[in-house]
Amino acid sequence: MSKEPKLSLIPLGGLGEIGKNMMAVRFGEKILVIDCGLMFPEEGMLGIDIVIPDITYLLENRDSVLGIVLTHGHEDHIGALPYVLRQLNVPVYGTKLTLGLLHGKLKEQNMISETILHTVKPRDVVQVGPFKIEFIKVSHSIPDAVAIAVHTPIGVVFHTGDFKIDQTPVDGQVTDFQRLAQLGEKGVLVLLSDSTNAERPGYTMSERFVGNTFDETFRLAAEDRIIIATFATNVHRLQQAIQAAYKHNRKVAVVGRSMVNVVSVATELGYLDIPDGIMIELEEANRLPKNRVAILTTGSQGEPMSALTRMALSDHRQVEILPGDTVIISATPIPGNEKLVARIIDQLFKLGAKVIYESMSGIHVSGHPSQEELKLMINLTRPKFFVPIHGEYRMMIRHAELARDVGVSPEHIFVGENGQILEFTRRSGRVAGRVAAGKVLVDGLGVGDVGNIVLKDRRMLSQDGILIVVVTINRETGLIMAGPDIVSRGFVYVRESEELLEEARMRVKASLEKCTCKGISEWSSMKSQVRDVLGKYLFEKTRRRPMILPIIMEV
Amino acid sequence: MSKEPKLSLIPLGGLGEIGKNMMAVRFGEKILVIDCGLMFPEEGMLGIDIVIPDITYLLENRDSVLGIVLTHGHEDHIGALPYVLRQLNVPVYGTKLTLGLLHGKLKEQNMISETILHTVKPRDVVQVGPFKIEFIKVSHSIPDAVAIAVHTPIGVVFHTGDFKIDQTPVDGQVTDFQRLAQLGEKGVLVLLSDSTNAERPGYTMSERFVGNTFDETFRLAAEDRIIIATFATNVHRLQQAIQAAYKHNRKVAVVGRSMVNVVSVATELGYLDIPDGIMIELEEANRLPKNRVAILTTGSQGEPMSALTRMALSDHRQVEILPGDTVIISATPIPGNEKLVARIIDQLFKLGAKVIYESMSGIHVSGHPSQEELKLMINLTRPKFFVPIHGEYRMMIRHAELARDVGVSPEHIFVGENGQILEFTRRSGRVAGRVAAGKVLVDGLGVGDVGNIVLKDRRMLSQDGILIVVVTINRETGLIMAGPDIVSRGFVYVRESEELLEEARMRVKASLEKCTCKGISEWSSMKSQVRDVLGKYLFEKTRRRPMILPIIMEV
Repeated sequence: MSKEPKLSLIPLGGLGEIGKNMMAVRFGEKILVIDCGLMFPEEGMLGIDIVIPDITYLLENRDSVLGIVLTHGHEDHIGALPYVLRQLNVPVYGTKLTLGLLHGKLKEQNMISETILHTVKPRDVVQVGPFKIEFIKVSHSIPDAVAIAVHTPIGVVFHTGDFKIDQTPVDGQVTDFQRLAQLGEKGVLVLLSDSTNAERPGYTMSERFVGNTFDETFRLAAEDRIIIATFATNVHRLQQAIQAAYKHNRKVAVVGRSMVNVVSVATELGYLDIPDGIMIELEEANRLPKNRVAILTTGSQGEPMSALTRMALSDHRQVEILPGDTVIISATPIPGNEKLVARIIDQLFKLGAKVIYESMSGIHVSGHPSQEELKLMINLTRPKFFVPIHGEYRMMIRHAELARDVGVSPEHIFVGENGQILEFTRRSGRVAGRVAAGKVLVDGLGVGDVGNIVLKDRRMLSQDGILIVVVTINRETGLIMAGPDIVSRGFVYVRESEELLEEARMRVKASLEKCTCKGISEWSSMKSQVRDVLGKYLFEKTRRRPMILPIIMEV
Repeated sequence: MSKEPKLSLIPLGGLGEIGKNMMAVRFGEKILVIDCGLMFPEEGMLGIDIVIPDITYLLENRDSVLGIVLTHGHEDHIGALPYVLRQLNVPVYGTKLTLGLLHGKLKEQNMISETILHTVKPRDVVQVGPFKIEFIKVSHSIPDAVAIAVHTPIGVVFHTGDFKIDQTPVDGQVTDFQRLAQLGEKGVLVLLSDSTNAERPGYTMSERFVGNTFDETFRLAAEDRIIIATFATNVHRLQQAIQAAYKHNRKVAVVGRSMVNVVSVATELGYLDIPDGIMIELEEANRLPKNRVAILTTGSQGEPMSALTRMALSDHRQVEILPGDTVIISATPIPGNEKLVARIIDQLFKLGAKVIYESMSGIHVSGHPSQEELKLMINLTRPKFFVPIHGEYRMMIRHAELARDVGVSPEHIFVGENGQILEFTRRSGRVAGRVAAGKVLVDGLGVGDVGNIVLKDRRMLSQDGILIVVVTINRETGLIMAGPDIVSRGFVYVRESEELLEEARMRVKASLEKCTCKGISEWSSMKSQVRDVLGKYLFEKTRRRPMILPIIMEV
C-alpha cells in the first residue's frame, strides 16, 4: 500500500459565503495558505466592523505553516492579514500591486518591519517546502490578479482566485490561456474555482465596455461637471475614466481616502497611466469651469461615511452637487447595500443632478466569470477533482452542475464547507473530517471578544430598548433605603409615558416590599421577580419586550 | 374672475417612497381620500413594526372628509385603515375582495360594528359630496383592483392605483381600455399614475407566463413533492398553482396564516375556482405519496417567522423538507429582503431540495407597469396635468420623463412630495403650500410614541451596547455608601473582560471620590464626569462608544 503523504484542502473561509476567502493546502506535515480575506458583517451582527476567519487550525499547526500566497489585492483576499500575521508571522507572497496595497495596511498597523513580503510576477515559480507555487495571470476587477497552481508531489492544485475571462482587458494583459492549457494537458488534480457569478448565464462583458460608456457619457454631458463613483481598487475603471477625461479635455480630481490611496499606489507602481498635468486638487477643480472637470470618488455602495454619500447629503466640505451635474455610479450594489445606494441616487436627483446608474446598461461590468467562462476554465484545466469555492451555497451548487455538464464525474465534485478537510490521493478524494472554522468578529480593537451573548443583547436592545430598575437595600434589615428608580433608554419617549413608567415603578415597589430578602443569596430571586412583574405589565400595556435589568445596591 | 372652488391634490403618502399610499383630493371644502396604506420599516427604524401616514391634515379638517376609497387590497393600500379609522371614522368604498380582506383586519381589531363599508364594482359610479367617483377595472397582482376616476366640477382626476396592462389576465378580466379611452376622449384634467416600475423598459410579462412555468415545473418534478412559496394575496398566482396541481393530479395543502386567510376569503367571495376535493389539510398531505402533493406557503420574502423560513430551518411543526423536494419561490425579493431570501434558498439546498427561484426566468412577474405600459396609460387618458405617484424619487423622475416623451407639456408635470398641496384650475396647476405629512411609527401597541430620540438610543445601544454605573450616596455627607457598580449589556463578553471593567470601576470611583457633590443640583455635573472618564477610558481601550448611563441613588 502506498505510504505517500496525503494532500488535504482545508477551506477556512469563502465557502458558503462571499468573503473572508482563505484556503489551507496541506501536504504531509506542511501547510500553505492561499489568501486571507475579511468579510463585511451580516445583518444582525450589530456594531461589528469586520469579520475574519477563525485560524485556530493554523495556530494549532503553527510550525507547519510555510507561508501565505495572495491571488489579488481585494479586501476579501488580503483584509484579514493584519490580524492574522500578528498571531502567525509567516512570509507572504503576492504580485506587486497586491503587496503594494497590503503594504499600506501593514504600515498603518506598524507591522512593516516584522513582515516578510515576497514579490512575484505571473509565470514565476517559487518552491516553498514541498510546494512548487506557480502564479498565472488572470483578469479581474483589479490589476495584477493571479491564479495559483500549487504543484505537489501527487499532483497540481489549481486555485483560480477571483477571475473573469476578459478577451480585451484594459491593460492588454489577457488571461494566460497558454499556461492554463498546458496545465490541463498535463492534468490538474484538483480545480478550485470562483463561484460568485455561477448563477449568471453567458459571458461577463469586458471591462472595456464600461470605457465606451464613459466616453459616450462624457460626450453627452459636454457642458456639465462629471462625477464618477466606483470601487477604489478598480484601477482599470479609474484608468478608463481618466482616459475619457483626457480625450474630452477635462482635468481629474480624486476624492475619498481609499481612492486617493489606490491612485497613489497604482501610479507609483506603474499600474495607472496618467497624462501629464491631468490630475488636480479639488480646490483647483472648484475654480475651473464645470465642463473642464471630472471628479473620481468613492461611495458607489452608498457607504454612510463615504465621499459620495456626503455630497448627496450636502455634507461634503469641498464638493457641492449643483443642478446639471452628471453623476455616474459605476457599480452594482453589493447584496445588502441596495437601499443605501437607492437613497443616494434619490438624494442626488433631488439636488438636480443627472444620475447615471445601474438601470442604464454598460455603466458597470462584473469582475467575476459567468457560466460560459466557468465552463471554459474547467475545459482548459481538465481537472480530475472539482471544488467550487468563493460563493454562497446555491452558487456553489450551480457551479457543481456546470462542472458536471462539461464532464467532470459527479463523484469527483465536492461542494464543501468551511472547516471541512477534503483529502486527495492521486486517484481518490473524500471528506476526511473537520477542523475549527468560523467567524471571528472584530469590533473596534476587540478581535473575537464579541460573541453570541453580546450580539443577542445588542439585538434585544435594538428592538425595544432597556429598562433599568435600581434599588438600594439595607443589608441588615432588607428594607428599601432608596428607589426603586426606573430609567429607560430606547423604550418609549419618556415625556409621553410618565404615567406608564410611574405605574411600573409602583408595581415593582409593591412587589419588592412584599419580599424580605437579605443578602446576595436571595437577590437573584428578587431580580427575577422584578423582571416578571415589570415584563408582564409592560407587555400588556405596550406589546413590547424591552430588556429589564434590575440592580440591587446594598448599604 | 372665476370664483370657482379650487381642486387640490394632497399626497399624504406614497410619493418618494414605496408604501403607505394615501392621496387626499380636495374640492372646495370637501375632501375625499384615496387609499390608506402602511409601509414596512426602513433600515434604522429599529424595533418598529409598521409605518403609517401622518393624518394630521385630515384630523384638522375632520368634518370635511367624506370617505376613503380603495383601489385594491394590498397592505400598502389598506394596511393603515385600522389605525386611521379609529381616529377618523368615515365610510370606506372598495371592491368585494378589497373589502373582504379589510374585513378580516377590522374584525381582529373589533372594529366591524362601527365601520361603514360600501362595496362597489367596476364601472360603478358613486356620488359623494361634489365628487362623482367611478371605479375602473385594471390588472394587478391581486384581483379586483380598480383605478379611480374622480369627476369634479372642474374636471376628472384619474388615479391609476397600482396596475399593469395584462393582455391575458388569468381571470379574463382585461383592463377596461374602452372606459379609459372614453375618459381620454373627453379629457382628463390630472393623471396620477403608478411609478413603481418606471425604470423598467418594455412591457411587464403577463401573469399567465408564470402559469406556464408552473405547469412545466410540475411536469419535470413528476416524482417529487412540490412546495410553492408566493405572496399570499396573489390570488391569480394561487389559482394557477392550483390548476397545475389539478392537471398533474396532486392535492393541495395551504400553509401560513395569511395565505390560509386569503384562500378562505377569496374562495368564499368567488375569486378562486377550486376543483372539488383538491384542497387537503397538511396532516393528510403528509400521508399521501410525495408525487401527489403540492404545498402552497407564505415566506417568499424570507420573513423570519414565515412558514417557508421555518421549513428551511427545519423548525416547522408539520412540514419537513426532504431531499428531492422541489421548492418554487415565486417572487422577487422586495428591496431590502435580498439577503433574507438568499439565506432561505441556501438552507433549502442544504436540506437537499431542488430550489427554483428568481435566477430562473418565468417564475415570477411583476404586478406593476413597465415603461411601455406607462406610456400607453398616458396616451389612453390624455391628461392635461400629470403627477407620478407610488415610487421613490428616481422612479417618479423617470416616469415624468416618459410623460414628456409622449407629449405632456413639461410645465404640466409635477414631481411632488408628500404633504405638498398641488392646486389645479381648469387651465393651470401649481404648488400651493404644504401640510403636515410624514411617518408615524407603530411599535407594538404604541402609535407614534417612538420618535427620533428613542430610535437614536436604539441605534446607539445596537452598536456598542450600554454600561450602567450605579452609585449610592449619603445625602447629608455626599459620601459614597455603595458602589460604584458597573453593569454592562451588549458591550463586551464580561467574563473575558473582567479586568477592563474592574479598571473602569476604579477610575469612576476615584473620580467620584474627588468630588463632594451633594444634592440633585450637582448630580448632573457628577454624571457628566462619570460619562467623560468612562467614555474616554473605554474608547482608548476598545475603540467602542457604548452608551454610558450613570445612576445616582441617595440614602
